[in-house]
Amino acid sequence: MASSSAFSTWTLNGSSVVPEATKNFGGIICHYQTGCFKETVRCLSMRVSADMPHSWELPNDKLVASGLGRLSLKNKVQCSALEVDMKPSYSVGNKFQLEDVIEAQQFDRNTLSAIFEVALEMEKIEKNSARSQILKGYLMATLFYEPSTRTRLSFESAMKRLGGEVLTTENAREFSSAAKGETLEDTIRTIEGYSDIIVLRHFESGAARKAAATASVPIINAGDGPGQHPTQNDIKDHLTSSGVEWEECSDLMEVASTCDVVYQTRIQRERFGERVDLYEEARGKYIVDRDVLGVMQKHAVVMHPLPRLDEITVDVDMDPRAAYFRQAKNGLYIRMALLKLLLLGW
Amino acid sequence: MASSSAFSTWTLNGSSVVPEATKNFGGIICHYQTGCFKETVRCLSMRVSADMPHSWELPNDKLVASGLGRLSLKNKVQCSALEVDMKPSYSVGNKFQLEDVIEAQQFDRNTLSAIFEVALEMEKIEKNSARSQILKGYLMATLFYEPSTRTRLSFESAMKRLGGEVLTTENAREFSSAAKGETLEDTIRTIEGYSDIIVLRHFESGAARKAAATASVPIINAGDGPGQHPTQNDIKDHLTSSGVEWEECSDLMEVASTCDVVYQTRIQRERFGERVDLYEEARGKYIVDRDVLGVMQKHAVVMHPLPRLDEITVDVDMDPRAAYFRQAKNGLYIRMALLKLLLLGW
Amino acid sequence: MASSSAFSTWTLNGSSVVPEATKNFGGIICHYQTGCFKETVRCLSMRVSADMPHSWELPNDKLVASGLGRLSLKNKVQCSALEVDMKPSYSVGNKFQLEDVIEAQQFDRNTLSAIFEVALEMEKIEKNSARSQILKGYLMATLFYEPSTRTRLSFESAMKRLGGEVLTTENAREFSSAAKGETLEDTIRTIEGYSDIIVLRHFESGAARKAAATASVPIINAGDGPGQHPTQNDIKDHLTSSGVEWEECSDLMEVASTCDVVYQTRIQRERFGERVDLYEEARGKYIVDRDVLGVMQKHAVVMHPLPRLDEITVDVDMDPRAAYFRQAKNGLYIRMALLKLLLLGW
Repeated sequence: MASSSAFSTWTLNGSSVVPEATKNFGGIICHYQTGCFKETVRCLSMRVSADMPHSWELPNDKLVASGLGRLSLKNKVQCSALEVDMKPSYSVGNKFQLEDVIEAQQFDRNTLSAIFEVALEMEKIEKNSARSQILKGYLMATLFYEPSTRTRLSFESAMKRLGGEVLTTENAREFSSAAKGETLEDTIRTIEGYSDIIVLRHFESGAARKAAATASVPIINAGDGPGQHPTQNDIKDHLTSSGVEWEECSDLMEVASTCDVVYQTRIQRERFGERVDLYEEARGKYIVDRDVLGVMQKHAVVMHPLPRLDEITVDVDMDPRAAYFRQAKNGLYIRMALLKLLLLGW
Repeated sequence: MASSSAFSTWTLNGSSVVPEATKNFGGIICHYQTGCFKETVRCLSMRVSADMPHSWELPNDKLVASGLGRLSLKNKVQCSALEVDMKPSYSVGNKFQLEDVIEAQQFDRNTLSAIFEVALEMEKIEKNSARSQILKGYLMATLFYEPSTRTRLSFESAMKRLGGEVLTTENAREFSSAAKGETLEDTIRTIEGYSDIIVLRHFESGAARKAAATASVPIINAGDGPGQHPTQNDIKDHLTSSGVEWEECSDLMEVASTCDVVYQTRIQRERFGERVDLYEEARGKYIVDRDVLGVMQKHAVVMHPLPRLDEITVDVDMDPRAAYFRQAKNGLYIRMALLKLLLLGW
Repeated sequence: MASSSAFSTWTLNGSSVVPEATKNFGGIICHYQTGCFKETVRCLSMRVSADMPHSWELPNDKLVASGLGRLSLKNKVQCSALEVDMKPSYSVGNKFQLEDVIEAQQFDRNTLSAIFEVALEMEKIEKNSARSQILKGYLMATLFYEPSTRTRLSFESAMKRLGGEVLTTENAREFSSAAKGETLEDTIRTIEGYSDIIVLRHFESGAARKAAATASVPIINAGDGPGQHPTQNDIKDHLTSSGVEWEECSDLMEVASTCDVVYQTRIQRERFGERVDLYEEARGKYIVDRDVLGVMQKHAVVMHPLPRLDEITVDVDMDPRAAYFRQAKNGLYIRMALLKLLLLGW
């Protein structure tokens, strides 16, 4: 997004926090509701010890917090507290460093690890039917200029599992004012007035970055043309640019027998143009079947971004190393984590 | 759905239920929320008497329940209780016998009667603006491979009237990964990860049954090609297979004067292929108008699945025997009942 | 809508209101929830004074109300109260005089002023992240026979910002039973069974009026063919019919230097048919750019209904007199106000 702050903060001070014996850990932000107003509390310091990372008891008039549970001030203000991370850089309430999610290159290993930890919390929420309300009152717009039902539903499920609401466009390219010649920037300026975060899928490379430069709300890139689809992560280019060693090989059995991850993808017919013969040749060449499974290591996994055609045979599905449906479900948790992080911070 | 249990249960025992003077009635399941966790309580026995079917008072630490109202344990756990039916087979909290709703043949008379009773409760909820929240936190996906706005909106209204949420696809055939060649089974395995129940409309006969065999969440068949549309019930075949006596007749006036129900349907042009002449002949032959009403019995009704063209004239609409708009509204209550039963049980 | 009352009312009387020293101000309606039932309370008289327009204290067993806050009876009934306006004609709880929003001619200056005051309250709600729930439990259907993503999302955002829920059709013309030949009246009779208010966009002039004559729920016209689009207001015809003096001029610079508002619009290519030459001529003739801004008065504004093509250059956007994006946002507040007024009254 274009501006730097998504919500106002209110600093507690004076008698309501304990100044001595505190440990600066980056602050805690929580949202509380009094009547119908939702406000944000930020405590810059707080008594806390390493052996109780998720729970605090403070004297009268002080904060009492516990993990993902509830946090209260003595004066009856009720807060939904977020998990506190002891690492200063990812403490609860710290603003997420990224304002938008546009491309894989934004994420270093530390950030990814921290996001995965949040995603684990999200998995607990979803599996325990915990019906979280942490994004209650937030509105996400899915602005899809080309259809991608799977991606759209995954984001919408993520938002709704956290108590948020959704505005949907399934085919903005054909239906919207884009057909009348409106620029993407103008559209974004209108849609940002209706929502708190925009998930954009566009047919033009670079559209997400352009939208983010205009928007005052966070933009998540759900694919822009042949460009990045960062929530599925275009890994190969990223590895290259980061100097990671890698090699190409045309013998699937040889590779399968040694690697930890077989990441299969759909052969995209549209990339072959009129050379149907080349498509058919490529399509039949690399098929993960029970023979491939047979040479794979016990701990290795088969991944796939889905949808699949016949590049993985269905008799592979039951093998515990077939990870692609788990992978789709994990995509939901990652999206829940990103929505939480962009809207509420760590 | 493929697996047999939609949610885990926790059995109360020891001091929290009264073992003496109890009556086994199949158990009661309720969902309660403590903090952000929703759990399920199942009591296998309970003091209850036939003359107070919807209300109980139990000693300390015991359950107190009332009709569709609230149910509480002394330890402050608050539950939304479901209506208790004294018939052991349909007691509150009993799992609904059907895991999916695929075809008319699943329903015997007893089951239909029990569903209608639940539908009556749903009608009260909808009419009294009671804004039920019994499905709060549940997510329904409407996976429509061909458009059917009326059916889709009816299910979505039913879900939202009960406090649930919806993920929508209006035209999955054209827009989704199905266009890329993904099998229905793969799509279901993905969508079931995003939702708690799937309403499927598909262009291929047998698709709903195939989906139900794969899914771990309940499937409701909202039409699959020329196959069943069980929530509108393909009555004729079902009567035949059940050995019910019936006859065909080509004289509308004669039939109308003796029957209790005139169930009119749209003449579907697409069934006639290129024989437009036959279509036009059939179309004009059976029209329910005021003349037909004139010979009908006072208590008889005219039904129609809608949409109608000219097979019922609009001057019939005001007659109290014109039941088709009431019928559409009742379809909403039946859908509310089915969603409630599949997700929460009786 | 066709009938005159959208919800039942319950009159408080006897000891629960103060009969002496009261001022008849049209009554107050509030919605309260006991258990799962939502009811409506209407007090026909109430002690109130002009110098405390938003707050009352009444003796025991009497009403205590405050602005947009909460209102309670001593017997623990909790109500969401609406703002009380001291003008008898627009008092809190008074039914909105308009049952549907069909055309600009419905609105006189007094009504518009009163709506703008409500819209200001809506702006506060939206800006303060107040996450209002005043329309919780209400269901709005957006029945769009032709796509208009901007208008649809604006209404849906308005509804959700007030806690309401939405049923969506993005392209009812192609997808719905209309394609099978169903009349609009029949469709309305079905959809009104699924929702509490219908936002209709239709391709035929007069469709909204026809729908309103049939419906038992409020209809909002979101555009019907070349007809009215009252929430963007077809101003010129309305001025003429009201006898307001106006003149046409073909010199943009001359007009811009004297007027208070430059209301620019898109040159609609579809209106020119095959005369592309005339379209190109018209298109290039009236462009608001920095030269036009240069002659405009300091207090004047440039408005535009959006989407724009090149009839306003982008370098105008940063000028504080460029009002079109503010205008789009204000459209959201107006829609919030109309939804509130049609469903809850003043």
